[in-house]
Amino acid sequence: MKINVGIVGYGNLGKALEKEILKNRNYNLVAIFSRRTIKSNFNTLVESYDSYVQYKGKIDIMFLCGGSIYDLESQTPEISKTFNTINTFDTHAKIQTQLELLSQISKENETISIISCGWDPGIFSIARALFSAISNFDVYTFWGKGISMGHSDALRRVEGVVDGVQFTVPNKEAIKLAKLGKLDNNIHLHYRDCYIVSHDTDEIKIENTIKNIPNYFAGQPTKVSFVNSKELIKLKKKLYHKGEVISYLSDSNKNYFKLDFKAKMSSNPTFTAKIMIAYSKAVINMMNKKIFGAFTPLDIPVSYLYSEDEKDKLLKLC
Amino acid sequence: MKINVGIVGYGNLGKALEKEILKNRNYNLVAIFSRRTIKSNFNTLVESYDSYVQYKGKIDIMFLCGGSIYDLESQTPEISKTFNTINTFDTHAKIQTQLELLSQISKENETISIISCGWDPGIFSIARALFSAISNFDVYTFWGKGISMGHSDALRRVEGVVDGVQFTVPNKEAIKLAKLGKLDNNIHLHYRDCYIVSHDTDEIKIENTIKNIPNYFAGQPTKVSFVNSKELIKLKKKLYHKGEVISYLSDSNKNYFKLDFKAKMSSNPTFTAKIMIAYSKAVINMMNKKIFGAFTPLDIPVSYLYSEDEKDKLLKLC
Repeated sequence: MKINVGIVGYGNLGKALEKEILKNRNYNLVAIFSRRTIKSNFNTLVESYDSYVQYKGKIDIMFLCGGSIYDLESQTPEISKTFNTINTFDTHAKIQTQLELLSQISKENETISIISCGWDPGIFSIARALFSAISNFDVYTFWGKGISMGHSDALRRVEGVVDGVQFTVPNKEAIKLAKLGKLDNNIHLHYRDCYIVSHDTDEIKIENTIKNIPNYFAGQPTKVSFVNSKELIKLKKKLYHKGEVISYLSDSNKNYFKLDFKAKMSSNPTFTAKIMIAYSKAVINMMNKKIFGAFTPLDIPVSYLYSEDEKDKLLKLC
Repeated sequence: MKINVGIVGYGNLGKALEKEILKNRNYNLVAIFSRRTIKSNFNTLVESYDSYVQYKGKIDIMFLCGGSIYDLESQTPEISKTFNTINTFDTHAKIQTQLELLSQISKENETISIISCGWDPGIFSIARALFSAISNFDVYTFWGKGISMGHSDALRRVEGVVDGVQFTVPNKEAIKLAKLGKLDNNIHLHYRDCYIVSHDTDEIKIENTIKNIPNYFAGQPTKVSFVNSKELIKLKKKLYHKGEVISYLSDSNKNYFKLDFKAKMSSNPTFTAKIMIAYSKAVINMMNKKIFGAFTPLDIPVSYLYSEDEKDKLLKLC
């Protein structure tokens, strides 16, 4: 039996999900829901955002592909009343509040909501939590160079910004120190490289607003460059990304324990889509086990990413 | 309240566990159980193996440190009748059978048994299962250069072998091909480099017996060298190890998705001990939730490695 799924939001992530789902014989993509007037790249049925409730019983899982900072925070609790949902909520500071709210809603409505389900937060969270539990030592994450979808979305919401994109650039010196177990808190791990199109003449005001967005840019070395639309279109096509979670412990007795988890991808949205689809199997398993509520990948055993039919495959990976 | 633990078996792993547990203020090491006459390196109480049952109620978790091939397979089901247990069972082909047997015993006796809980199987299993679920592509594991405790134990059981050690050596060419997504099944991933002390004159017979041990050496390029006791003692002190789980997918359209998980350590037993201790927190959490049965790390959410008190710490790692 195919898993019936829907996509809410048709930006880079929604488009990547559509493509990945259509390649997978186990899934049936019922509809894309959007507040904008859009056309699917693959002739998928497009419905207005408000009509999603009418699909109750026809869709098993909704993939929520809005931007964290506004969309997901309001949409996820609403949609989770009716559907199982998976999102990539990446505002770390608000994850606990979202989890508590969603947990109540999902339990009441017997749905499952997986949040923060991408590569970071998501599988990088698993690596961090695993490393920290084992090494009891500092764990560092480096991202980039690559576009951060969450950060780009955050800066596009700034008044006066027509469009924009943010590249996260790791500090190579910091990576080197982390791998020697010698990184301290005074060294910035990343630079945030923002490119903005604006018709507003008060560029300084825009730059300052961006640099002070809490949880995203405030307190981090941020560079804001104003470019024209043509330059920005070119920049936004750069979907590659990479990242690394490391915990390197060494002592004066020549003991060392080094853990290192790396991901590198030609397309961030496609990679994120692959992860969301992998976790959609957990939703099905949890539905069968009647485990309702809200979860991050940290709360989900890796074995849940495999169906009963795939138990032998999983065993070989143990 | 401290967690009361015991150690069964006092080889490299048992010794490393003792040292790690004694460094941790949250644990109380009650006793080491051994079939041999041993003396603890740190004045821990040593009891005979047969007396473990008398510690019912006084020990929360038993760390089982015997060698997989014989000890763990028979000891774990016995001890799990009385205690929660954690072992590093690494005979892949028998994991399912052990899980089923232990699951029944642990559920009947309301205990928890975590098996295959080291770096491989263990956290590398998590990486493999996660990578495979996401990439739907081949996942390769490379080990070494380093001593495999399981393989060394297996060859020491061979008749005529007084003592021995096995170094796993990865095939560098295979790693290179895997990172290009071009590895095929005709290429051996590893060499198995065995060093043996034997007073038996029939070295050819010993060599052949080793090369045919199923699940450990059969079908793999294995080299057996006979050395004297002094040389072997020196070789056995080399406790460093490393390993890498990779899944590199690339296509003709210049799309690529690369996942890479690496561990490198100065001491394999100490690193394994750290992982077992990390998972002992899961045992406590599962006791509190009354989740009895047998599990591998694949069945355990990473959040279980954190106590209720550490919830804020975990959240920061998400």
